[in-house]
Amino acid sequence: MSGDGLTHTQVQKAVIETVDAFHYGRFHVVQPKGIGHRSGMDAMLLAALVAGQGPIRVADLGAGAGAAGLAVAARIEKAEVLLVERSPLMADFARKTLALPSNAAFAGRVSVLEADVSLSGRARVAAGLVDEACDYVIMNPPFNDRIYNRPPDALKAEAHAMDEDLFERWIRTAAAILKPGGQLSLIARPQSIGEIIAACGRRLGGIEITALHPRADEAALRILVTAIKGKRTSLSLRMPLVMHEPGQHAFTPFVKDLNNGNTAYARLSKA
Amino acid sequence: MSGDGLTHTQVQKAVIETVDAFHYGRFHVVQPKGIGHRSGMDAMLLAALVAGQGPIRVADLGAGAGAAGLAVAARIEKAEVLLVERSPLMADFARKTLALPSNAAFAGRVSVLEADVSLSGRARVAAGLVDEACDYVIMNPPFNDRIYNRPPDALKAEAHAMDEDLFERWIRTAAAILKPGGQLSLIARPQSIGEIIAACGRRLGGIEITALHPRADEAALRILVTAIKGKRTSLSLRMPLVMHEPGQHAFTPFVKDLNNGNTAYARLSKA
Repeated sequence: MSGDGLTHTQVQKAVIETVDAFHYGRFHVVQPKGIGHRSGMDAMLLAALVAGQGPIRVADLGAGAGAAGLAVAARIEKAEVLLVERSPLMADFARKTLALPSNAAFAGRVSVLEADVSLSGRARVAAGLVDEACDYVIMNPPFNDRIYNRPPDALKAEAHAMDEDLFERWIRTAAAILKPGGQLSLIARPQSIGEIIAACGRRLGGIEITALHPRADEAALRILVTAIKGKRTSLSLRMPLVMHEPGQHAFTPFVKDLNNGNTAYARLSKA
Repeated sequence: MSGDGLTHTQVQKAVIETVDAFHYGRFHVVQPKGIGHRSGMDAMLLAALVAGQGPIRVADLGAGAGAAGLAVAARIEKAEVLLVERSPLMADFARKTLALPSNAAFAGRVSVLEADVSLSGRARVAAGLVDEACDYVIMNPPFNDRIYNRPPDALKAEAHAMDEDLFERWIRTAAAILKPGGQLSLIARPQSIGEIIAACGRRLGGIEITALHPRADEAALRILVTAIKGKRTSLSLRMPLVMHEPGQHAFTPFVKDLNNGNTAYARLSKA
């Protein structure tokens, strides 16, 4: 009966896919359901931090199924986006996402690179993460949902692994592949603020931080961070974004616009 | 004529004193005019971070003429406050402050210790900064006015010296003299946030940060930080305080109350 048992297990582990609409249906993302990290508002806010125009080159590090990178490609005409993802399963979902007919308008400007963001030196370059190639790097490092719940399965556990030096390694790669004057954008939890600032170090300056509060009487759940390669000006704390008015479930208008790709969230200080 | 010249120089360098009222005249501070750091709103906001009651022991590190420490003593009945100041000139002003008749109601609960906050180990203890003696430590490290102007004289330059490891040394001392579960409070510039978090390290946790914005459309000029000795919970970003409504010179009501000692700014999470 062991054969039956194995078959049964395989059926239970079959990956169920969903196709989720973003930006009022302007693009779609194929995602696994129940396993792995599912992209949503974090990815949309991250994408909104890219306020550039024209033929910019953007890398989405730890892209998952591609939601943040596609949000950039869908909003910014001529933007070329590289989705970088270590997990073969999630990279497959990114490729399925790009193959959707509803994404055809910009899928030609988006490509997938299966690579480990934490590589360094020659191994990083050999993996396809080339020095000074990008105008923008965006990253939603793989840990965010731990704020809500513990990962119940192995793939999610990997995606949410909170390595001691995760920001050091990821921001080191971001700084390497950015052009001088290029912009790093990331979304993270407030408790990572110290690690992020330390990892930017002398690589990236002009750090701008915006906290994201669910409501005005609650502590922040996320921080939006941008920094410029080679810039030397000091850190700024911007006024936070508040997601909901008291007693309301709908998003506040500006957050709704950011979430739907209607506007970008530009830096105070340009590169 | 060199004697005349010397006399003339001495006259020019005579220290002009002012007596400034705080908390609607509930206490006064004797300060030098034109040299040294002059206390004002930063000191009052710092003092507002002490939300305790009863016979608490509070150390004000780098107390200057004593404004922040006196604000705590004036607001909290039975609080015992130690003003710690390295500069003999400023410590003299602190002693003059305590001798004012208008401060008599609480001056008996306040004392001055001339000591260098950055000492460590036995030298620190020998200087009078004893281990685990305090329920609260407050500090307004000596650099804040650099945000507005460069120090034009030597005393101010000393007071505003931005040593590389200033926060590491001051927070090390704060953690040493705090009782377990005691609270550090500080006011600083936003660009120091990384150093502050790093210096808290494993010594102090449950860090809560509130940015202080002049107006809602301007970046923060200060951060208010509290942390608890031995606590292990993660950092929180609270909603910022905004000092002025658009087009107004008056302070917003809550900031005015904090500035005038009418209320404390309590932590979200108690020790």
